[in-house]
Amino acid sequence: MIPWKIGDKVTRKRALGEKEVAHFASLVGDLNPIHSDLGAARLAGFVGTIAHGMIAGSFFSEILGNELPGPGSVYLEQRFQFLAPIYFPSDIVLSVEVVNVRGDQKIITVRTTCLDSDGVLCLDGEAVLLRRDVSANDVS
Amino acid sequence: MIPWKIGDKVTRKRALGEKEVAHFASLVGDLNPIHSDLGAARLAGFVGTIAHGMIAGSFFSEILGNELPGPGSVYLEQRFQFLAPIYFPSDIVLSVEVVNVRGDQKIITVRTTCLDSDGVLCLDGEAVLLRRDVSANDVS
Repeated sequence: MIPWKIGDKVTRKRALGEKEVAHFASLVGDLNPIHSDLGAARLAGFVGTIAHGMIAGSFFSEILGNELPGPGSVYLEQRFQFLAPIYFPSDIVLSVEVVNVRGDQKIITVRTTCLDSDGVLCLDGEAVLLRRDVSANDVS
Repeated sequence: MIPWKIGDKVTRKRALGEKEVAHFASLVGDLNPIHSDLGAARLAGFVGTIAHGMIAGSFFSEILGNELPGPGSVYLEQRFQFLAPIYFPSDIVLSVEVVNVRGDQKIITVRTTCLDSDGVLCLDGEAVLLRRDVSANDVS
């Protein structure tokens, strides 16, 4: 069975800086100037350039794929609310917390949150994942 | 005002191959073997290794940031349903279609879809974005 129960939580700190922002921009091709140009960021209502929302969103894949639920997990759904800008560089804190495990122990729902280095909740969300590689009879 | 109306749509084709999968895995640190090891992918119920769901999810940032709604856009929400695996390499087709524009013309809701090279709908979702840099009096 899935070796997790409601309330279990994994938290990781990550550096999010110019290097990661440039890496992401080059991978996806998003040239929105709010991520690189102070004037454009100010016009959009920010006091500095901000990281792409989906970088932080993508960083959850590390926890989901490696730890909770872990290798073999299959992503079924993800919802994100981008609540506050992430000004970089920032040591962001990503957490994944179990909020539901389905009766057959194969589908797990987790809350995904990201705080910036000041402790502001920048991103909140929920993900649903499948572990088809576990059986209800497995002992975790 | 936001120069878009309900039904407007932008579609882009992108190559999603080993290079992009490795680039994303290195950026986020997701080592889930279903993305690189055939045996692990089969155990998880697939016939081949599959791309990280969030790569395709991140690729929407290109359209959102550059075109629709375009530079200056601020991400408020994103929801994804991962409906089918993306086996790579694949020429995926990403679309962003306007489903709502709020009365004050600053908040726009779009449907985000991704088809694989066989036309299978692999990812469906919805995003909400803000254009704080436009005024209701601007002529688009």
